[in-house]
Amino acid sequence: MRFFSDNAAAACPEALASLAEANRLDTAYDGDEWSKRLNAAFSALFEREVEALWVTTGTAANCLALAALCPPHGRILCHEQAHIEIDECGAPEFYTGGAKLMLVEGEGAKLTPDGVMAALGTVRDDVHQAQPAALSITNATEYGRVYTAAETAALGALCRKRGLRFHLDGARFANAVARLGASPAELTWKAGVDALSFGFTKNGGLSAEALILFDPALAKETHYRRKRAGHLLSKGRYLAAQLLAMLEGDVWLRNARAANDAAARLAEAAGGDRLVHPVEANELFIRVSAAEAASLRTQGFDFYDWGAGEARLVTAWDSDPGHVAALAAAIAAL
Amino acid sequence: MRFFSDNAAAACPEALASLAEANRLDTAYDGDEWSKRLNAAFSALFEREVEALWVTTGTAANCLALAALCPPHGRILCHEQAHIEIDECGAPEFYTGGAKLMLVEGEGAKLTPDGVMAALGTVRDDVHQAQPAALSITNATEYGRVYTAAETAALGALCRKRGLRFHLDGARFANAVARLGASPAELTWKAGVDALSFGFTKNGGLSAEALILFDPALAKETHYRRKRAGHLLSKGRYLAAQLLAMLEGDVWLRNARAANDAAARLAEAAGGDRLVHPVEANELFIRVSAAEAASLRTQGFDFYDWGAGEARLVTAWDSDPGHVAALAAAIAAL
Amino acid sequence: MRFFSDNAAAACPEALASLAEANRLDTAYDGDEWSKRLNAAFSALFEREVEALWVTTGTAANCLALAALCPPHGRILCHEQAHIEIDECGAPEFYTGGAKLMLVEGEGAKLTPDGVMAALGTVRDDVHQAQPAALSITNATEYGRVYTAAETAALGALCRKRGLRFHLDGARFANAVARLGASPAELTWKAGVDALSFGFTKNGGLSAEALILFDPALAKETHYRRKRAGHLLSKGRYLAAQLLAMLEGDVWLRNARAANDAAARLAEAAGGDRLVHPVEANELFIRVSAAEAASLRTQGFDFYDWGAGEARLVTAWDSDPGHVAALAAAIAAL
Amino acid sequence: MRFFSDNAAAACPEALASLAEANRLDTAYDGDEWSKRLNAAFSALFEREVEALWVTTGTAANCLALAALCPPHGRILCHEQAHIEIDECGAPEFYTGGAKLMLVEGEGAKLTPDGVMAALGTVRDDVHQAQPAALSITNATEYGRVYTAAETAALGALCRKRGLRFHLDGARFANAVARLGASPAELTWKAGVDALSFGFTKNGGLSAEALILFDPALAKETHYRRKRAGHLLSKGRYLAAQLLAMLEGDVWLRNARAANDAAARLAEAAGGDRLVHPVEANELFIRVSAAEAASLRTQGFDFYDWGAGEARLVTAWDSDPGHVAALAAAIAAL
Repeated sequence: MRFFSDNAAAACPEALASLAEANRLDTAYDGDEWSKRLNAAFSALFEREVEALWVTTGTAANCLALAALCPPHGRILCHEQAHIEIDECGAPEFYTGGAKLMLVEGEGAKLTPDGVMAALGTVRDDVHQAQPAALSITNATEYGRVYTAAETAALGALCRKRGLRFHLDGARFANAVARLGASPAELTWKAGVDALSFGFTKNGGLSAEALILFDPALAKETHYRRKRAGHLLSKGRYLAAQLLAMLEGDVWLRNARAANDAAARLAEAAGGDRLVHPVEANELFIRVSAAEAASLRTQGFDFYDWGAGEARLVTAWDSDPGHVAALAAAIAAL
Repeated sequence: MRFFSDNAAAACPEALASLAEANRLDTAYDGDEWSKRLNAAFSALFEREVEALWVTTGTAANCLALAALCPPHGRILCHEQAHIEIDECGAPEFYTGGAKLMLVEGEGAKLTPDGVMAALGTVRDDVHQAQPAALSITNATEYGRVYTAAETAALGALCRKRGLRFHLDGARFANAVARLGASPAELTWKAGVDALSFGFTKNGGLSAEALILFDPALAKETHYRRKRAGHLLSKGRYLAAQLLAMLEGDVWLRNARAANDAAARLAEAAGGDRLVHPVEANELFIRVSAAEAASLRTQGFDFYDWGAGEARLVTAWDSDPGHVAALAAAIAAL
Repeated sequence: MRFFSDNAAAACPEALASLAEANRLDTAYDGDEWSKRLNAAFSALFEREVEALWVTTGTAANCLALAALCPPHGRILCHEQAHIEIDECGAPEFYTGGAKLMLVEGEGAKLTPDGVMAALGTVRDDVHQAQPAALSITNATEYGRVYTAAETAALGALCRKRGLRFHLDGARFANAVARLGASPAELTWKAGVDALSFGFTKNGGLSAEALILFDPALAKETHYRRKRAGHLLSKGRYLAAQLLAMLEGDVWLRNARAANDAAARLAEAAGGDRLVHPVEANELFIRVSAAEAASLRTQGFDFYDWGAGEARLVTAWDSDPGHVAALAAAIAAL
Repeated sequence: MRFFSDNAAAACPEALASLAEANRLDTAYDGDEWSKRLNAAFSALFEREVEALWVTTGTAANCLALAALCPPHGRILCHEQAHIEIDECGAPEFYTGGAKLMLVEGEGAKLTPDGVMAALGTVRDDVHQAQPAALSITNATEYGRVYTAAETAALGALCRKRGLRFHLDGARFANAVARLGASPAELTWKAGVDALSFGFTKNGGLSAEALILFDPALAKETHYRRKRAGHLLSKGRYLAAQLLAMLEGDVWLRNARAANDAAARLAEAAGGDRLVHPVEANELFIRVSAAEAASLRTQGFDFYDWGAGEARLVTAWDSDPGHVAALAAAIAAL
């Protein structure tokens, strides 16, 4: 019973079925019927004209966005636990041509306007320091917290005021939407977001992510950047078809709700004191002694240790209800 | 009846079926059972220990290889029609950190030791010029020609003599093997090749390419480069499974033979005078007047014009025999 | 008697004297009194507001300009013998983050609108090819030819029409101005030039070049790029002082005239048939047999062979009149 | 009376005189008689064969060294106040092709083996994180502290154990040597240092720094990197001559002692409680109230505020004894 991560789950039936549907000769490189429907499909979802580019990884989506938003001599503010800092092996530096990440603290991997302003205040406005050019946040965060539309908009307002572009890493954006009940538009462009990495892989896709650009001026160069990074697939229709299949009938939202619900059940079983962070999406960080962790593992549950005395448990769109119930019982019994 | 390119063909049944097989929870990032079998499977095929990394595009495979073989201040020799020069939007420059491509002429997009030596002879051995560090060839070439094992080995010997590393762009490597009857080993490491981009996408995969490193010293850093380029997929098992499925029972070779056979039938119909290049793989370049091209299109055949008075026709693993026969007849009737 | 190059000549008295004058404590990094006068001095010379940045090498000036004019996914058109292609070890690729140089032919290392248009015509307007973003020419050229104001303006008009930015490598700009009698303005921004590398090193400076930006929008980012390339000197006042000293009283023009005059004397001695290119600045390319070259060397003249049967002779601001006369006589006597 | 920084001081007579001496035609690009003597001169000083490259800025020296020591996918550990992090506008990221700086705390801008080990301990050894490749320290530090030979060697031993290369930013290396009485060899290669940025600019040069490579294997590629960064000067003899003039008769050491002595006099006047850091080189950080700082300025002393309640005072090789005495008296009288 594996609760390691949602990034290795199976693909949902709709995504898998879309591959068979797309399995016929068509035009290469975005010229196929599925890719050509992407912009319209995402524009409908976001209630405005957007440009959508499919890629295969969140790292690619994040870093193509950052390269569009930050010059080589700029600085990207992000949480010190942000995926772009911790888990991408310098991809932002590679894609931007050497921009600097500036790490900001914040509870639950969430940034606040105060935290961002404090960081900005440490940068001298002279030519000897890379100047702040972009802000990147993650919703849901690396610790399973969410930014409300209002919280996002407060950061967006700060960005506009300080001349920063605004990127949202949405590897688990679906989980945030599912939790908050806000519209995708409210959580993004209406709150000042310029570019969104909209993750489908953790949410039931095979390997499919959408980079959503709300500023059309960024789209043209990003197409070139995607190509020269090797992320324009000749048979990209297999990606586009997955995305469309998961948009249709809000499969993406249904999947995210299922993952969130499973995490909520575990959180309820754990109870407040054991939770390191409030559980707002599909990740659970719990305080466990070494003996407790060992006990859970003996009972057949797999998960990551997360520093001393903590464990991370991640649910997915297809978490087995029986496994979840068993884990909930095991946690409650600790 | 589309003869534009093999890069938009459907996936073969074995590749598609492998996705369903791999559609269950496993470990992310190369930790799954399919990815862990890749090295052994390719080592068996190449009759020696190799390291294989899956990626989704030939551009990624080519440029990860070139970054491993050429420093930022180096120079990569290639044919002036090479894909890395013509169709990758500067990806080699991006991945290598600014190495220079040095363009060499040669009939049929093939390089010869003489041609390479002539190019090398124009570079001054001083600090003002980026020094030659790598040679990259394509087999089968962009014009559908093949390098024999002996021709490859002659270039490999020149590389060793001149201190160059040797890359082989094998987007259509399967077609070359199918044509030549030589072993994959003879066409690569036995001929001095250090790294091979082994294409499966054009040959019946969905979007799956294997970067084969014959020099194990290159593997470690390449894993980091792949990650930071956003080309390490969490659910890479869907790629690995495709590759394994196409290796098993030599599906890759069967597919390539089918494509080559279709091209051969067209070549026979065209006759020698009409052929711009000998047809040795699955691409056909024919001389046609504007009227002839229009006539073919009127009959329902789609293809690319290739400069004035020429057309390119590409067959694939699944080219419809009826379409091929019809096109052959139409060409013969011109 | 050395006629290798003007790039190793002594510094002129005015430049040297300026160092002593600047040799007192002042503010670092452009904050000193000399640096603060640069923009005004060059603005006066160019008859409009310009932004001037001092650097120590022509390579730095060229590549900072190119980085400002061309994105990483762009293409810079230049002559196949351009210094940026032949003698900068990939510096343009380094500074731009991997842009491609596109080589164009042209007599005497001069580009023509027709030549540029022909090159542009070979680039497909799709995402697979780096798109043309900038044109770079050299005046005087690597072969000692000059572009008139009209010729420059014709290229400038083409740039505007095709959306290209326009860079002028003026390592020997002074020699071109001296030859043409046109104003610096006419040869640059009035002809559509966006950025000029204005060379003083070959013309009597120690190691001092001015990057002149005619588009003020380019200046801000270029200051950051200069800093992060390590080309912002704390004691830059020693550079600024040289530039000011050579601008004052048109020392730069007087020096260039002296070099041009010496070359003209040699050209007259050589006569038309022996000249590979018309001599319009301070470089002379002459046809000499191996025996003739050896004879000149035996007589004490040093110079570079320039391919088979050719020699390059370069004069400088301080070419010794006696040496020049002796060389002229020796050439005439061949 | 300016105590802002040593980076804007006048050049010492020996450096200035060397320019006049070098002011005659010679060979360009390291081919001149001064440049050709550099390796031998520095090898004598360091008691072993070294390769020395002159550059014009400390940023260039630092970042050429880092590019030689750290791959693009690597990580450079340094103090959080290190010049390479704080004052180079992302130059390390530019030169290395996007390596990451990892910031480590330590009193007085000094690193300790424990601090470095703690930082190393936070990096997972997997492909998702850039792996530590180099350590960079500054001696004397940004806060005017020095590393003894033993302290340096302890870090060097750690580097060897953990597979890190070791860079020493010696913008004020002369001041450290002057303070410690240790030999240059003991403070560098004997302690495991691979590359040293040896600063002469702050110590009485015009704009001259020496990059000293103790590992000859690094030299070849660094020459290419220097060229392509635009840091190879055609008339580099003016730099080489300065370096030689300051090495001869240990002018460099004499200058550093003068600066250190001036700082020591100020430190004595300030007394222990007012000093933020022990004064071990030529920088003084003192606690002053706003009123005290204003008072000093009213008396004609210029310096930088350094955060709230602190001021930085820097002496130079040529600090006027009268000014120093006056400042000492003024500080004592606060």
